[in-house]
Amino acid sequence: MKKALQFGAVLCTLSGAALAQSSVTLSVITDLAVRHSKTSAGSLTSMVSGSNSTSRMIIRGSEDLGDGLRANFWLESTIAADTGVPGAFSPAGQFFDRQSTVSLSGKFGEVRLGRVWNPIFTGYAYTDPFVFVGVGSMGNFFNASVSTVFQRAFGSALNPTTISRSSNALEYLSPNTLGGFNAHLMSSFGENNNAGGSFKYNAGRLGYRAGPLDVSAYTGNTRIDATGANLKQSGVSGIYTLGVVRMSGSVLNSSYLGSKQTNIVLGAFITVGTNFIRVSYNRADQKGKSATGASIDANDAQQVALGYQYTLSKATALYTNLARLSNKGAAAFAVPGGAPGAAPGSSSTGYEIGLRTVF
Amino acid sequence: MKKALQFGAVLCTLSGAALAQSSVTLSVITDLAVRHSKTSAGSLTSMVSGSNSTSRMIIRGSEDLGDGLRANFWLESTIAADTGVPGAFSPAGQFFDRQSTVSLSGKFGEVRLGRVWNPIFTGYAYTDPFVFVGVGSMGNFFNASVSTVFQRAFGSALNPTTISRSSNALEYLSPNTLGGFNAHLMSSFGENNNAGGSFKYNAGRLGYRAGPLDVSAYTGNTRIDATGANLKQSGVSGIYTLGVVRMSGSVLNSSYLGSKQTNIVLGAFITVGTNFIRVSYNRADQKGKSATGASIDANDAQQVALGYQYTLSKATALYTNLARLSNKGAAAFAVPGGAPGAAPGSSSTGYEIGLRTVF
Amino acid sequence: MKKALQFGAVLCTLSGAALAQSSVTLSVITDLAVRHSKTSAGSLTSMVSGSNSTSRMIIRGSEDLGDGLRANFWLESTIAADTGVPGAFSPAGQFFDRQSTVSLSGKFGEVRLGRVWNPIFTGYAYTDPFVFVGVGSMGNFFNASVSTVFQRAFGSALNPTTISRSSNALEYLSPNTLGGFNAHLMSSFGENNNAGGSFKYNAGRLGYRAGPLDVSAYTGNTRIDATGANLKQSGVSGIYTLGVVRMSGSVLNSSYLGSKQTNIVLGAFITVGTNFIRVSYNRADQKGKSATGASIDANDAQQVALGYQYTLSKATALYTNLARLSNKGAAAFAVPGGAPGAAPGSSSTGYEIGLRTVF
Repeated sequence: MKKALQFGAVLCTLSGAALAQSSVTLSVITDLAVRHSKTSAGSLTSMVSGSNSTSRMIIRGSEDLGDGLRANFWLESTIAADTGVPGAFSPAGQFFDRQSTVSLSGKFGEVRLGRVWNPIFTGYAYTDPFVFVGVGSMGNFFNASVSTVFQRAFGSALNPTTISRSSNALEYLSPNTLGGFNAHLMSSFGENNNAGGSFKYNAGRLGYRAGPLDVSAYTGNTRIDATGANLKQSGVSGIYTLGVVRMSGSVLNSSYLGSKQTNIVLGAFITVGTNFIRVSYNRADQKGKSATGASIDANDAQQVALGYQYTLSKATALYTNLARLSNKGAAAFAVPGGAPGAAPGSSSTGYEIGLRTVF
Repeated sequence: MKKALQFGAVLCTLSGAALAQSSVTLSVITDLAVRHSKTSAGSLTSMVSGSNSTSRMIIRGSEDLGDGLRANFWLESTIAADTGVPGAFSPAGQFFDRQSTVSLSGKFGEVRLGRVWNPIFTGYAYTDPFVFVGVGSMGNFFNASVSTVFQRAFGSALNPTTISRSSNALEYLSPNTLGGFNAHLMSSFGENNNAGGSFKYNAGRLGYRAGPLDVSAYTGNTRIDATGANLKQSGVSGIYTLGVVRMSGSVLNSSYLGSKQTNIVLGAFITVGTNFIRVSYNRADQKGKSATGASIDANDAQQVALGYQYTLSKATALYTNLARLSNKGAAAFAVPGGAPGAAPGSSSTGYEIGLRTVF
Repeated sequence: MKKALQFGAVLCTLSGAALAQSSVTLSVITDLAVRHSKTSAGSLTSMVSGSNSTSRMIIRGSEDLGDGLRANFWLESTIAADTGVPGAFSPAGQFFDRQSTVSLSGKFGEVRLGRVWNPIFTGYAYTDPFVFVGVGSMGNFFNASVSTVFQRAFGSALNPTTISRSSNALEYLSPNTLGGFNAHLMSSFGENNNAGGSFKYNAGRLGYRAGPLDVSAYTGNTRIDATGANLKQSGVSGIYTLGVVRMSGSVLNSSYLGSKQTNIVLGAFITVGTNFIRVSYNRADQKGKSATGASIDANDAQQVALGYQYTLSKATALYTNLARLSNKGAAAFAVPGGAPGAAPGSSSTGYEIGLRTVF
């Protein structure tokens, strides 16, 4: 092409950058399963995406700047592989919903800018042996259309929440060379009045890792502009690996206005050759009042889940998961994929069998 | 990057998958043409995408699991290269509108999950020498805003139809080693009440291929939730290759409530060195009643089309197509690209000249 | 995969194209900055994307057809890396908003089809040392929600404008071998009644380049369907490179109905080793009448900007920019990123510090 006539080339010339050589890596995880779920409203068979590992596309690059310093970028998009729809918040066009960052990393750790994972979420989500996906996910208790505390905080903000990620953020992750201690600090500017997941959010996590032990504590606030109040979250997590068994647990407290929710997860992730068994127990205890002032103290729920992954190869695995969730009081959580409209206090069950590739 | 602090890495660790090596293939077909069409409402010159081969992006991977067994994924997005808009159904954010699958293939054939091509469509569309694109496409008679049968079935469901593809599907394609016989079976769960093209759909195709002969028969049903009635489709296709001439034909019957449409295509695809001549004749015969009870028996239409592709190289081709479509009765089909609002019973003509690359 | 059973394979066979080998290049520029802006309405700190070089993804390929002839495609998407949202016009789903073309290039120059850069824009934008991005961008005076002339032309057409690009276009770029002269001609069909940026647009640029001198003149019209009137633009640009200093300047006149705006930019781009200093002065002089018939003669504005890029490596740079913009009369331009609602006649200032990678 006539370089001098190509505007893109001019842009690059003026920034001293050359597009000619590219070292971008494109990775894709595709995971689809047949799920059967039964709630009090009826049962349903469906095709679902990402029950073992979220179906997604990752575009990333990393450059060695010498002396351990690296420049990195990472763009990651959820793909609902059952329908072909990418991004978690398609109404806002958020294609790279999972991560969109540029960073510098080195001996000092890593400084990232952009849309990042929240320190609180990464603290507790990786103690869920199902890593927050599938019919047995810990995430079943973080549903903003059901859980009073998240419903009140995010119910008026359409889809976006800060439960797992936040846009417009500045993040620091320490190295793990501080005598076993590590830290993760994040501040999200929230300059767009909660539009497109743009919340003012500050959070931090402090961890300690030594041998088989990996523990962390975390806390943070999301400012909800509609009320001016903060959603407050804090918790502790621990993992202990004993041979082939990785035991894990977390306690997380979330509160907003007068509503509170305590989430507890206990899990085991067992390696059997190249295969995995996952077991989890989850509780969600609610306290305080709903938006109408009614007590939500009785609205508790629990879930047990079991999963098995049969690893066919480096890239490919078959898996099956099953879960049972039971509510108390007016709690109306449900395993995903069932007929909508589960009755308060009812139980639901679901199982799924799927195929996942990682390229 | 500090792997232990990267949540994405944790997700992968817990699924036994490694992102480090990627063998994803990215392919892009870009096809743009200048088209001039004339309908009874007036003539229009436009820039159009995909008249030789749909402009699209394909992201795919395949892993050899040994003994002929392979794991595969395939994500494919239509790109309207004239405007930069991807996906067929952008209101629903369906970026990977053309295919979104994970599959296992081997001596037994292939089992696919996700958004797939329908067995009926693949049965008849490849007997159209224009493969359902461009000004002379067989698809001119499948326009849900004009054809009574598709209008009644899909008119209330916004853009999505099951004419070519279906989401949330489970699919089996046999190998072609069964004495020349092959089969293609598909079932779509339709769990989301027709949202985003999520229809309950079952279809099958049985084929026989031997030497120059390739024939198939197919049938299937789409459940339209709004009425509870099924759009029923069935047909037969045949291809016979005689030297450089590939002759093809199909008869397809589509019916919904009291409306019927029979589509007939006869085509020839002639190879001249590395270039191609395409010739087609299409008919659409309507029968029965419209939604208001009026007879549609007289609403027939036919089209003749001629195309030439001049192949410049492996990746690049120039092409030209021309088509003339004539309606009878109240039929209001038209070649694409003309001024909107063709009068019932009128004729339309169009031609286009374009450039296509395949990378 | 069983090729004969893969519909995609059939499509390729009938177009003589093979997908097996792909030579697509994927490039990504990620640029994020922390910005602090102060307008008369208040100050705001935000995370912003693309202040040194627009964050974007480029998918492209080029094939050598022999004798200097090449076939090329280019798909390019803006990425708001602070939130993960791609495309400039996400309401219209325009993912590849920056460029979407297929072309043939050779000794004769290049013929492109699709969504392209406008000859007028490329004429003046590359005389802005900030190349139309960041807090000191020349683009601060092209804001269709503030500038009377662009507001009147595009205010009713939602986001899309023809200021920088146009869809459905046919473009010719000459080589630079005509005794120093070069030309850039473009015609956009505008067949979709201004939907999705589909304007009827004709423009041309004539340039002369010799040694340190690079000058051009350009003119063009955008038809605004709502009124039937044309937005007319014309201007001249010049660049003179003296050692490490690239001096540049442009004068652009834009008029629509009775409103006029003259934009002047004077800039210097100074190379210091691998680093860059950017300095610019911009003026926007308005003349004529607003939509209500009020005089806009007094509504002038000016801006000074200074930037520094510290180049860490081939791919990575740190940078900082600062700008001050002052309005006269009822002009209400503002540096980006401040609290919205700057008062007429007020001043605004902004600075930013960022990190940019090019992969």
